[in-house]
Amino acid sequence: MPRLAGHRVEGLSVGGIETCIDLPELKLAFDIGRCPDAVVQRPTILFTHAHMDHMGGVAWHAATRSLRALGLPTYVVPRETEAAFEELFAAWRKLDRSDLPHRRVALGPGEQLDLGRGLLARPFRSPHVVPCQGYALWSRRRKLRPDLAGLAEEEIRRRRTELGEEVTVEVETPEIAFTGDTRIEILEREEVVRRARLLILEVTFLDERVSVEECRAKGHVHLDEVVERAELFENEAVLFTHFSARYRREEVLEILDRRLPPALRAKATALV
Amino acid sequence: MPRLAGHRVEGLSVGGIETCIDLPELKLAFDIGRCPDAVVQRPTILFTHAHMDHMGGVAWHAATRSLRALGLPTYVVPRETEAAFEELFAAWRKLDRSDLPHRRVALGPGEQLDLGRGLLARPFRSPHVVPCQGYALWSRRRKLRPDLAGLAEEEIRRRRTELGEEVTVEVETPEIAFTGDTRIEILEREEVVRRARLLILEVTFLDERVSVEECRAKGHVHLDEVVERAELFENEAVLFTHFSARYRREEVLEILDRRLPPALRAKATALV
Repeated sequence: MPRLAGHRVEGLSVGGIETCIDLPELKLAFDIGRCPDAVVQRPTILFTHAHMDHMGGVAWHAATRSLRALGLPTYVVPRETEAAFEELFAAWRKLDRSDLPHRRVALGPGEQLDLGRGLLARPFRSPHVVPCQGYALWSRRRKLRPDLAGLAEEEIRRRRTELGEEVTVEVETPEIAFTGDTRIEILEREEVVRRARLLILEVTFLDERVSVEECRAKGHVHLDEVVERAELFENEAVLFTHFSARYRREEVLEILDRRLPPALRAKATALV
Repeated sequence: MPRLAGHRVEGLSVGGIETCIDLPELKLAFDIGRCPDAVVQRPTILFTHAHMDHMGGVAWHAATRSLRALGLPTYVVPRETEAAFEELFAAWRKLDRSDLPHRRVALGPGEQLDLGRGLLARPFRSPHVVPCQGYALWSRRRKLRPDLAGLAEEEIRRRRTELGEEVTVEVETPEIAFTGDTRIEILEREEVVRRARLLILEVTFLDERVSVEECRAKGHVHLDEVVERAELFENEAVLFTHFSARYRREEVLEILDRRLPPALRAKATALV
Protein backbone atom coordinates (compact mmCIF):
# COMPACT_ATOMS: atom_id res chain seq x y z
CA MET A 1 0.00 0.00 0.00
CA PRO A 2 1.28 3.54 -0.70
CA ARG A 3 1.87 5.82 2.28
CA LEU A 4 -1.36 7.52 3.33
CA ALA A 5 -0.95 11.10 4.59
CA GLY A 6 2.63 10.14 5.36
CA HIS A 7 1.74 6.99 7.30
CA ARG A 8 2.54 3.39 6.55
CA VAL A 9 -0.62 1.31 6.96
CA GLU A 10 -0.85 -2.49 6.78
CA GLY A 11 -3.29 -5.08 7.99
CA LEU A 12 -6.55 -6.48 6.76
CA SER A 13 -10.25 -6.01 7.33
CA VAL A 14 -13.16 -8.13 6.14
CA GLY A 15 -16.49 -7.38 7.76
CA GLY A 16 -17.52 -10.05 10.27
CA ILE A 17 -14.38 -12.09 9.68
CA GLU A 18 -11.26 -10.26 10.78
CA THR A 19 -10.07 -6.67 11.22
CA CYS A 20 -6.60 -5.51 12.15
CA ILE A 21 -5.23 -2.11 11.11
CA ASP A 22 -1.48 -2.19 11.54
CA LEU A 23 0.54 1.02 11.87
CA PRO A 24 4.07 -0.39 12.05
CA GLU A 25 5.87 2.96 12.28
CA LEU A 26 3.66 4.06 15.18
CA LYS A 27 4.28 0.66 16.84
CA LEU A 28 0.58 0.06 17.32
CA ALA A 29 -2.46 -1.56 15.75
CA PHE A 30 -6.21 -1.09 15.93
CA ASP A 31 -8.10 -4.32 16.74
CA ILE A 32 -6.91 -7.89 16.25
CA GLY A 33 -9.65 -10.18 15.02
CA ARG A 34 -7.15 -12.95 14.34
CA CYS A 35 -3.65 -11.75 14.92
CA PRO A 36 -1.54 -11.37 11.73
CA ASP A 37 2.09 -12.51 12.19
CA ALA A 38 3.53 -8.99 11.89
CA VAL A 39 1.26 -7.58 14.59
CA VAL A 40 2.85 -9.79 17.26
CA GLN A 41 5.58 -7.14 17.09
CA ARG A 42 3.24 -4.26 18.05
CA PRO A 43 3.32 -3.50 21.79
CA THR A 44 0.11 -1.44 21.78
CA ILE A 45 -3.32 -2.49 20.53
CA LEU A 46 -6.28 -0.13 20.63
CA PHE A 47 -9.58 -2.01 20.59
CA THR A 48 -12.72 -0.36 19.22
CA HIS A 49 -15.16 -2.97 20.52
CA ALA A 50 -15.31 -6.58 21.63
CA HIS A 51 -16.82 -8.36 18.63
CA MET A 52 -14.87 -11.50 17.79
CA ASP A 53 -13.73 -10.22 14.40
CA HIS A 54 -12.07 -7.26 16.17
CA MET A 55 -10.80 -8.80 19.41
CA GLY A 56 -10.56 -12.56 18.74
CA GLY A 57 -6.75 -12.57 18.52
CA VAL A 58 -5.92 -10.75 21.75
CA ALA A 59 -5.06 -13.72 23.97
CA TRP A 60 -2.93 -15.30 21.24
CA HIS A 61 -1.14 -11.94 20.85
CA ALA A 62 -0.36 -11.86 24.59
CA ALA A 63 0.81 -15.49 24.71
CA THR A 64 2.97 -15.23 21.62
CA ARG A 65 4.63 -12.00 22.78
CA SER A 66 5.35 -13.63 26.13
CA LEU A 67 6.82 -16.76 24.55
CA ARG A 68 9.03 -14.70 22.27
CA ALA A 69 10.03 -12.29 25.09
CA LEU A 70 8.81 -9.26 23.12
CA GLY A 71 7.86 -7.22 26.18
CA LEU A 72 4.63 -6.34 27.95
CA PRO A 73 1.82 -5.41 25.53
CA THR A 74 -0.69 -2.67 26.31
CA TYR A 75 -4.33 -3.31 25.44
CA VAL A 76 -6.55 -0.24 25.33
CA VAL A 77 -10.18 -1.33 25.69
CA PRO A 78 -13.51 0.48 25.87
CA ARG A 79 -14.59 0.86 29.50
CA GLU A 80 -17.76 -1.16 28.81
CA THR A 81 -15.75 -4.24 27.90
CA GLU A 82 -13.21 -4.12 30.70
CA ALA A 83 -14.82 -6.63 33.06
CA ALA A 84 -15.45 -9.29 30.43
CA PHE A 85 -11.99 -8.68 28.99
CA GLU A 86 -10.58 -9.52 32.41
CA GLU A 87 -12.73 -12.67 32.58
CA LEU A 88 -11.40 -13.71 29.19
CA PHE A 89 -7.83 -13.53 30.44
CA ALA A 90 -8.78 -15.29 33.69
CA ALA A 91 -10.15 -18.21 31.66
CA TRP A 92 -7.12 -18.25 29.37
CA ARG A 93 -4.70 -18.23 32.31
CA LYS A 94 -6.33 -21.44 33.53
CA LEU A 95 -6.30 -23.01 30.08
CA ASP A 96 -2.81 -21.93 29.01
CA ARG A 97 -1.42 -22.26 32.56
CA SER A 98 0.58 -19.09 32.09
CA ASP A 99 0.39 -15.47 33.25
CA LEU A 100 -0.29 -13.95 29.82
CA PRO A 101 1.28 -10.70 31.04
CA HIS A 102 -0.15 -7.48 29.64
CA ARG A 103 -1.20 -4.01 30.70
CA ARG A 104 -4.90 -3.29 30.33
CA VAL A 105 -5.99 0.34 29.96
CA ALA A 106 -9.72 1.08 30.02
CA LEU A 107 -10.36 4.30 28.16
CA GLY A 108 -13.48 6.13 27.08
CA PRO A 109 -14.57 9.19 25.11
CA GLY A 110 -13.38 12.36 26.84
CA GLU A 111 -10.21 10.65 28.07
CA GLN A 112 -6.81 10.35 26.47
CA LEU A 113 -3.79 8.11 26.61
CA ASP A 114 -0.25 9.37 26.03
CA LEU A 115 1.34 6.79 23.76
CA GLY A 116 4.78 8.41 24.01
CA ARG A 117 6.85 9.89 21.19
CA GLY A 118 4.43 12.83 21.03
CA LEU A 119 1.38 10.72 20.20
CA LEU A 120 -1.96 10.87 22.02
CA ALA A 121 -4.94 8.53 21.61
CA ARG A 122 -8.38 10.02 22.18
CA PRO A 123 -11.42 7.76 21.84
CA PHE A 124 -14.71 8.97 20.44
CA ARG A 125 -18.08 7.22 20.51
CA SER A 126 -18.92 5.29 17.31
CA PRO A 127 -22.61 4.44 16.92
CA HIS A 128 -22.78 0.66 16.42
CA VAL A 129 -24.96 -2.23 17.67
CA VAL A 130 -22.66 -2.77 20.66
CA PRO A 131 -20.57 -0.24 22.61
CA CYS A 132 -17.89 0.89 20.21
CA GLN A 133 -15.37 3.68 20.07
CA GLY A 134 -13.12 5.05 17.40
CA TYR A 135 -9.71 6.55 18.12
CA ALA A 136 -8.07 9.74 17.00
CA LEU A 137 -4.29 9.74 17.16
CA TRP A 138 -2.99 13.26 17.72
CA SER A 139 0.61 14.30 17.30
CA ARG A 140 1.77 16.90 19.80
CA ARG A 141 4.80 19.04 18.92
CA ARG A 142 6.25 22.32 20.07
CA LYS A 143 6.41 25.05 17.39
CA LEU A 144 7.65 28.63 17.32
CA ARG A 145 5.04 31.06 18.62
CA PRO A 146 3.20 32.45 15.57
CA ASP A 147 3.78 36.08 16.72
CA LEU A 148 7.54 35.49 16.67
CA ALA A 149 7.59 34.26 13.09
CA GLY A 150 9.88 36.46 10.99
CA LEU A 151 12.17 37.46 13.88
CA ALA A 152 15.90 36.77 13.53
CA GLU A 153 17.07 33.54 15.13
CA GLU A 154 19.39 35.53 17.39
CA GLU A 155 16.53 37.63 18.70
CA ILE A 156 14.48 34.54 19.47
CA ARG A 157 17.42 33.00 21.31
CA ARG A 158 17.88 36.21 23.32
CA ARG A 159 14.24 36.23 24.37
CA ARG A 160 14.43 32.62 25.41
CA THR A 161 17.74 32.69 27.28
CA GLU A 162 18.01 36.27 28.57
CA LEU A 163 14.37 37.15 29.11
CA GLY A 164 13.21 33.60 29.95
CA GLU A 165 10.35 33.98 27.51
CA GLU A 166 8.46 30.89 26.31
CA VAL A 167 9.06 31.14 22.56
CA THR A 168 7.23 27.98 21.50
CA VAL A 169 3.65 26.81 21.68
CA GLU A 170 2.32 23.29 21.74
CA VAL A 171 0.56 22.26 18.53
CA GLU A 172 -1.67 19.23 18.22
CA THR A 173 -2.50 17.69 14.85
CA PRO A 174 -5.05 14.91 14.32
CA GLU A 175 -2.95 12.46 12.33
CA ILE A 176 -5.20 9.43 12.09
CA ALA A 177 -8.83 8.69 12.94
CA PHE A 178 -10.06 5.10 12.90
CA THR A 179 -13.81 4.74 13.38
CA GLY A 180 -14.11 1.04 14.15
CA ASP A 181 -17.56 -0.30 13.26
CA THR A 182 -19.96 2.59 12.96
CA ARG A 183 -22.99 4.16 11.36
CA ILE A 184 -22.34 7.11 9.04
CA GLU A 185 -23.46 9.70 11.65
CA ILE A 186 -19.92 9.57 13.01
CA LEU A 187 -18.97 11.84 10.13
CA GLU A 188 -21.30 14.63 11.22
CA ARG A 189 -20.81 14.09 14.93
CA GLU A 190 -17.04 14.01 15.22
CA GLU A 191 -15.06 16.83 13.72
CA VAL A 192 -11.85 14.82 14.06
CA VAL A 193 -13.26 12.19 11.72
CA ARG A 194 -13.68 14.79 8.98
CA ARG A 195 -10.38 16.54 9.71
CA ALA A 196 -7.81 13.86 10.61
CA ARG A 197 -5.03 13.80 8.03
CA LEU A 198 -5.81 10.12 7.45
CA LEU A 199 -9.30 8.78 8.04
CA ILE A 200 -9.76 5.01 8.22
CA LEU A 201 -13.48 4.40 7.74
CA GLU A 202 -15.50 1.24 7.46
CA VAL A 203 -17.77 0.83 4.44
CA THR A 204 -19.25 -2.61 4.88
CA PHE A 205 -21.85 -2.61 2.11
CA LEU A 206 -21.38 -1.27 -1.38
CA ASP A 207 -24.55 -1.70 -3.43
CA GLU A 208 -28.18 -2.74 -3.54
CA ARG A 209 -27.45 -6.32 -2.48
CA VAL A 210 -27.71 -4.90 1.04
CA SER A 211 -29.89 -1.82 1.35
CA VAL A 212 -28.99 1.29 3.31
CA GLU A 213 -31.75 0.37 5.79
CA GLU A 214 -30.42 -3.16 6.35
CA CYS A 215 -26.91 -1.76 6.62
CA ARG A 216 -27.96 0.78 9.24
CA ALA A 217 -29.78 -1.90 11.21
CA LYS A 218 -26.48 -3.82 11.40
CA GLY A 219 -24.72 -0.66 12.59
CA HIS A 220 -22.55 -0.17 9.52
CA VAL A 221 -21.80 2.32 6.74
CA HIS A 222 -23.18 1.91 3.22
CA LEU A 223 -21.35 3.37 0.23
CA ASP A 224 -24.50 5.30 -0.74
CA GLU A 225 -24.16 7.20 2.53
CA VAL A 226 -20.53 8.02 1.84
CA VAL A 227 -21.28 9.25 -1.66
CA GLU A 228 -24.01 11.57 -0.33
CA ARG A 229 -21.52 13.06 2.12
CA ALA A 230 -18.46 13.23 -0.12
CA GLU A 231 -18.12 16.97 0.52
CA LEU A 232 -17.59 16.42 4.24
CA PHE A 233 -14.26 14.62 3.94
CA GLU A 234 -11.59 17.24 4.62
CA ASN A 235 -8.95 14.55 5.15
CA GLU A 236 -5.76 14.30 3.11
CA ALA A 237 -6.34 10.58 2.65
CA VAL A 238 -9.22 8.19 3.32
CA LEU A 239 -8.74 4.45 3.70
CA PHE A 240 -11.96 2.47 3.26
CA THR A 241 -12.08 -0.87 5.08
CA HIS A 242 -14.32 -3.66 6.41
CA PHE A 243 -15.97 -4.63 3.12
CA SER A 244 -18.36 -7.53 3.45
CA ALA A 245 -16.93 -10.91 2.43
CA ARG A 246 -19.56 -11.06 -0.31
CA TYR A 247 -17.58 -8.62 -2.47
CA ARG A 248 -14.57 -9.85 -4.35
CA ARG A 249 -11.48 -7.66 -4.35
CA GLU A 250 -11.92 -6.56 -7.98
CA GLU A 251 -15.57 -5.79 -7.33
CA VAL A 252 -14.72 -3.51 -4.41
CA LEU A 253 -12.21 -1.58 -6.49
CA GLU A 254 -14.54 -1.32 -9.49
CA ILE A 255 -17.51 -0.12 -7.42
CA LEU A 256 -15.49 2.47 -5.52
CA ASP A 257 -13.93 3.70 -8.74
CA ARG A 258 -17.33 4.08 -10.35
CA ARG A 259 -19.28 5.53 -7.43
CA LEU A 260 -16.95 7.88 -5.55
CA PRO A 261 -17.04 11.52 -6.72
CA PRO A 262 -13.67 12.52 -8.25
CA ALA A 263 -12.38 14.67 -5.35
CA LEU A 264 -12.97 11.88 -2.83
CA ARG A 265 -11.84 9.16 -5.21
CA ALA A 266 -8.53 10.99 -5.68
CA LYS A 267 -7.64 10.64 -2.01
CA ALA A 268 -9.30 7.29 -1.34
CA THR A 269 -7.65 3.87 -0.97
CA ALA A 270 -9.34 0.54 -0.29
CA LEU A 271 -7.92 -2.04 2.11
CA VAL A 272 -8.54 -5.19 0.08
CA MET B 1 1.48 -32.43 0.53
CA PRO B 2 1.21 -35.96 -0.93
CA ARG B 3 -1.44 -38.27 0.51
CA LEU B 4 -0.17 -40.00 3.63
CA ALA B 5 -1.37 -43.58 4.10
CA GLY B 6 -4.27 -42.60 1.85
CA HIS B 7 -5.20 -39.49 3.82
CA ARG B 8 -5.14 -35.88 2.74
CA VAL B 9 -3.44 -33.82 5.46
CA GLU B 10 -3.18 -30.02 5.54
CA GLY B 11 -2.55 -27.44 8.22
CA LEU B 12 0.50 -26.05 9.95
CA SER B 13 2.43 -26.55 13.14
CA VAL B 14 5.20 -24.43 14.63
CA GLY B 15 6.10 -25.21 18.23
CA GLY B 16 4.81 -22.55 20.65
CA ILE B 17 3.24 -20.51 17.87
CA GLU B 18 0.41 -22.35 16.17
CA THR B 19 -0.68 -25.91 15.49
CA CYS B 20 -3.62 -27.09 13.42
CA ILE B 21 -3.69 -30.47 11.68
CA ASP B 22 -6.43 -30.38 9.08
CA LEU B 23 -7.97 -33.58 7.72
CA PRO B 24 -10.37 -32.15 5.13
CA GLU B 25 -11.69 -35.49 3.86
CA LEU B 26 -12.49 -36.63 7.40
CA LYS B 27 -14.17 -33.24 8.04
CA LEU B 28 -12.17 -32.65 11.20
CA ALA B 29 -9.02 -31.04 12.52
CA PHE B 30 -6.75 -31.53 15.52
CA ASP B 31 -6.17 -28.33 17.51
CA ILE B 32 -6.58 -24.75 16.32
CA GLY B 33 -3.89 -22.44 17.66
CA ARG B 34 -4.98 -19.68 15.32
CA CYS B 35 -7.66 -20.86 12.99
CA PRO B 36 -6.58 -21.20 9.32
CA ASP B 37 -9.25 -20.06 6.85
CA ALA B 38 -9.93 -23.55 5.51
CA VAL B 39 -10.54 -25.00 8.98
CA VAL B 40 -13.62 -22.80 9.49
CA GLN B 41 -15.23 -25.44 7.26
CA ARG B 42 -14.46 -28.33 9.65
CA PRO B 43 -17.37 -29.13 11.98
CA THR B 44 -15.30 -31.20 14.42
CA ILE B 45 -12.15 -30.16 16.25
CA LEU B 46 -10.32 -32.53 18.58
CA PHE B 47 -8.17 -30.66 21.10
CA THR B 48 -5.10 -32.31 22.60
CA HIS B 49 -4.54 -29.72 25.34
CA ALA B 50 -5.30 -26.12 26.22
CA HIS B 51 -2.04 -24.32 25.46
CA MET B 52 -2.66 -21.17 23.46
CA ASP B 53 -0.81 -22.42 20.39
CA HIS B 54 -3.20 -25.38 20.22
CA MET B 55 -6.51 -23.86 21.35
CA GLY B 56 -6.18 -20.09 20.76
CA GLY B 57 -8.43 -20.05 17.70
CA VAL B 58 -11.44 -21.92 19.11
CA ALA B 59 -13.71 -18.96 19.90
CA TRP B 60 -12.98 -17.35 16.53
CA HIS B 61 -13.82 -20.70 14.87
CA ALA B 62 -17.19 -20.81 16.67
CA ALA B 63 -18.03 -17.17 15.89
CA THR B 64 -17.05 -17.40 12.25
CA ARG B 65 -19.00 -20.62 11.68
CA SER B 66 -22.03 -19.03 13.30
CA LEU B 67 -21.77 -15.87 11.18
CA ARG B 68 -21.43 -17.91 8.01
CA ALA B 69 -24.22 -20.33 9.04
CA LEU B 70 -21.93 -23.34 8.66
CA GLY B 71 -23.66 -25.42 11.33
CA LEU B 72 -22.95 -26.33 14.94
CA PRO B 73 -19.31 -27.26 15.55
CA THR B 74 -18.27 -30.02 17.95
CA TYR B 75 -15.27 -29.38 20.20
CA VAL B 76 -13.76 -32.46 21.80
CA VAL B 77 -11.72 -31.39 24.82
CA PRO B 78 -9.70 -33.21 27.48
CA ARG B 79 -11.80 -33.61 30.65
CA GLU B 80 -9.25 -31.61 32.65
CA THR B 81 -9.83 -28.52 30.54
CA GLU B 82 -13.62 -28.65 30.38
CA ALA B 83 -14.40 -26.17 33.16
CA ALA B 84 -11.99 -23.48 31.98
CA PHE B 85 -13.10 -24.06 28.38
CA GLU B 86 -16.64 -23.24 29.52
CA GLU B 87 -15.39 -20.09 31.29
CA LEU B 88 -13.64 -19.04 28.11
CA PHE B 89 -16.90 -19.21 26.16
CA ALA B 90 -18.78 -17.49 28.99
CA ALA B 91 -16.36 -14.54 28.76
CA TRP B 92 -16.54 -14.48 24.97
CA ARG B 93 -20.35 -14.53 25.00
CA LYS B 94 -20.25 -11.34 27.06
CA LEU B 95 -17.63 -9.73 24.84
CA ASP B 96 -19.04 -10.79 21.48
CA ARG B 97 -22.66 -10.48 22.68
CA SER B 98 -23.57 -13.64 20.83
CA ASP B 99 -24.33 -17.27 21.68
CA LEU B 100 -21.26 -18.78 19.99
CA PRO B 101 -23.20 -22.02 19.54
CA HIS B 102 -21.20 -25.23 19.71
CA ARG B 103 -21.32 -28.71 21.17
CA ARG B 104 -18.66 -29.44 23.78
CA VAL B 105 -17.66 -33.07 24.34
CA ALA B 106 -15.32 -33.83 27.23
CA LEU B 107 -13.47 -37.04 26.50
CA GLY B 108 -10.63 -38.87 28.18
CA PRO B 109 -8.41 -41.94 27.74
CA GLY B 110 -10.49 -45.13 27.88
CA GLU B 111 -13.46 -43.40 26.27
CA GLN B 112 -14.42 -43.07 22.64
CA LEU B 113 -16.47 -40.80 20.42
CA ASP B 114 -18.29 -42.05 17.34
CA LEU B 115 -17.57 -39.43 14.67
CA GLY B 116 -19.97 -41.04 12.18
CA ARG B 117 -19.12 -42.49 8.78
CA GLY B 118 -17.42 -45.44 10.49
CA LEU B 119 -14.85 -43.33 12.33
CA LEU B 120 -14.11 -43.52 16.06
CA ALA B 121 -11.90 -41.19 18.10
CA ARG B 122 -10.11 -42.69 21.09
CA PRO B 123 -7.92 -40.45 23.23
CA PHE B 124 -4.73 -41.67 24.84
CA ARG B 125 -2.64 -39.93 27.50
CA SER B 126 0.34 -37.97 26.10
CA PRO B 127 3.03 -37.15 28.68
CA HIS B 128 3.52 -33.36 28.53
CA VAL B 129 3.94 -30.50 31.03
CA VAL B 130 0.15 -29.96 31.18
CA PRO B 131 -2.68 -32.50 30.82
CA CYS B 132 -2.54 -33.59 27.20
CA GLN B 133 -4.05 -36.38 25.16
CA GLY B 134 -3.44 -37.70 21.70
CA TYR B 135 -6.16 -39.19 19.54
CA ALA B 136 -6.34 -42.37 17.54
CA LEU B 137 -8.87 -42.36 14.74
CA TRP B 138 -10.12 -45.86 14.08
CA SER B 139 -12.11 -46.90 11.04
CA ARG B 140 -14.74 -49.52 11.74
CA ARG B 141 -15.96 -51.66 8.85
CA ARG B 142 -17.72 -54.99 8.45
CA LYS B 143 -15.71 -57.67 6.60
CA LEU B 144 -16.35 -61.27 5.60
CA ARG B 145 -15.63 -63.70 8.43
CA PRO B 146 -12.10 -65.05 7.89
CA ASP B 147 -13.26 -68.69 8.18
CA LEU B 148 -15.65 -68.15 5.23
CA ALA B 149 -12.94 -66.88 2.91
CA GLY B 150 -12.72 -69.06 -0.17
CA LEU B 151 -16.38 -70.15 -0.11
CA ALA B 152 -18.52 -69.48 -3.18
CA GLU B 153 -20.57 -66.30 -3.08
CA GLU B 154 -23.75 -68.36 -3.42
CA GLU B 155 -22.88 -70.48 -0.38
CA ILE B 156 -22.22 -67.35 1.69
CA ARG B 157 -25.58 -65.88 0.61
CA ARG B 158 -27.31 -69.14 1.55
CA ARG B 159 -25.79 -69.16 5.02
CA ARG B 160 -26.80 -65.53 5.55
CA THR B 161 -30.35 -65.70 4.22
CA GLU B 162 -31.43 -69.32 4.82
CA LEU B 163 -29.48 -70.16 7.97
CA GLY B 164 -29.50 -66.62 9.42
CA GLU B 165 -25.79 -66.88 10.04
CA GLU B 166 -23.72 -63.73 10.72
CA VAL B 167 -21.24 -63.89 7.85
CA THR B 168 -19.33 -60.69 8.59
CA VAL B 169 -17.21 -59.46 11.46
CA GLU B 170 -16.49 -55.93 12.55
CA VAL B 171 -12.92 -54.87 11.84
CA GLU B 172 -11.30 -51.84 13.35
CA THR B 173 -8.20 -50.26 11.83
CA PRO B 174 -6.19 -47.48 13.46
CA GLU B 175 -6.04 -45.03 10.58
CA ILE B 176 -4.41 -42.00 12.18
CA ALA B 177 -2.74 -41.28 15.51
CA PHE B 178 -1.93 -37.70 16.48
CA THR B 179 0.09 -37.38 19.65
CA GLY B 180 -0.30 -33.67 20.40
CA ASP B 181 2.59 -32.33 22.51
CA THR B 182 4.34 -35.24 24.14
CA ARG B 183 7.52 -36.80 25.41
CA ILE B 184 8.92 -39.74 23.42
CA GLU B 185 7.63 -42.37 25.92
CA ILE B 186 4.33 -42.22 24.09
CA LEU B 187 5.92 -44.46 21.48
CA GLU B 188 6.60 -47.27 23.94
CA ARG B 189 3.43 -46.77 25.96
CA GLU B 190 0.80 -46.68 23.25
CA GLU B 191 0.68 -49.47 20.73
CA VAL B 192 -1.64 -47.46 18.51
CA VAL B 193 1.06 -44.80 18.12
CA ARG B 194 3.42 -47.38 16.66
CA ARG B 195 0.75 -49.11 14.58
CA ALA B 196 -1.59 -46.43 13.21
CA ARG B 197 -1.39 -46.34 9.41
CA LEU B 198 -0.47 -42.65 9.67
CA LEU B 199 1.32 -41.34 12.74
CA ILE B 200 1.47 -37.57 13.24
CA LEU B 201 4.21 -36.98 15.79
CA GLU B 202 5.72 -33.81 17.19
CA VAL B 203 9.50 -33.40 17.00
CA THR B 204 10.08 -29.97 18.45
CA PHE B 205 13.89 -29.95 18.66
CA LEU B 206 16.28 -31.26 16.06
CA ASP B 207 19.87 -30.83 17.17
CA GLU B 208 22.28 -29.80 19.91
CA ARG B 209 20.98 -26.22 20.05
CA VAL B 210 18.45 -27.67 22.49
CA SER B 211 19.63 -30.78 24.33
CA VAL B 212 17.54 -33.90 24.88
CA GLU B 213 17.39 -33.00 28.59
CA GLU B 214 16.10 -29.47 27.97
CA CYS B 215 13.65 -30.85 25.43
CA ARG B 216 12.33 -33.44 27.89
CA ALA B 217 11.98 -30.77 30.58
CA LYS B 218 9.72 -28.85 28.20
CA GLY B 219 7.68 -32.01 27.57
CA HIS B 220 8.65 -32.46 23.92
CA VAL B 221 10.31 -34.92 21.56
CA HIS B 222 13.91 -34.50 20.36
CA LEU B 223 15.02 -35.91 17.02
CA ASP B 224 17.80 -37.85 18.78
CA GLU B 225 15.08 -39.77 20.62
CA VAL B 226 13.28 -40.57 17.37
CA VAL B 227 16.45 -41.78 15.69
CA GLU B 228 17.19 -44.12 18.63
CA ARG B 229 13.72 -45.61 18.28
CA ALA B 230 13.48 -45.75 14.50
CA GLU B 231 12.78 -49.50 14.61
CA LEU B 232 9.59 -48.99 16.60
CA PHE B 233 7.68 -47.17 13.86
CA GLU B 234 5.44 -49.79 12.23
CA ASN B 235 3.34 -47.07 10.56
CA GLU B 236 2.85 -46.80 6.81
CA ALA B 237 3.57 -43.07 7.00
CA VAL B 238 4.88 -40.71 9.65
CA LEU B 239 4.28 -36.96 9.57
CA PHE B 240 6.68 -34.99 11.75
CA THR B 241 5.34 -31.67 13.06
CA HIS B 242 5.75 -28.91 15.66
CA PHE B 243 9.33 -27.91 14.81
CA SER B 244 10.59 -25.02 16.90
CA ALA B 245 10.44 -21.63 15.17
CA ARG B 246 14.24 -21.46 15.46
CA TYR B 247 14.63 -23.89 12.53
CA ARG B 248 14.12 -22.63 9.02
CA ARG B 249 12.17 -24.80 6.62
CA GLU B 250 15.25 -25.86 4.64
CA GLU B 251 17.10 -26.65 7.83
CA VAL B 252 14.31 -28.96 9.02
CA LEU B 253 14.33 -30.85 5.74
CA GLU B 254 18.11 -31.09 5.61
CA ILE B 255 18.44 -32.33 9.21
CA LEU B 256 15.68 -34.93 8.84
CA ASP B 257 17.17 -36.11 5.57
CA ARG B 258 20.58 -36.50 7.15
CA ARG B 259 19.59 -37.99 10.50
CA LEU B 260 16.67 -40.34 9.89
CA PRO B 261 17.63 -43.96 9.18
CA PRO B 262 16.64 -44.96 5.62
CA ALA B 263 13.60 -47.11 6.46
CA LEU B 264 12.03 -44.35 8.56
CA ARG B 265 13.11 -41.63 6.19
CA ALA B 266 11.36 -43.42 3.34
CA LYS B 267 7.98 -43.10 5.01
CA ALA B 268 8.51 -39.76 6.73
CA THR B 269 7.15 -36.34 5.73
CA ALA B 270 7.71 -33.02 7.49
CA LEU B 271 4.94 -30.45 7.98
CA VAL B 272 6.90 -27.29 7.18
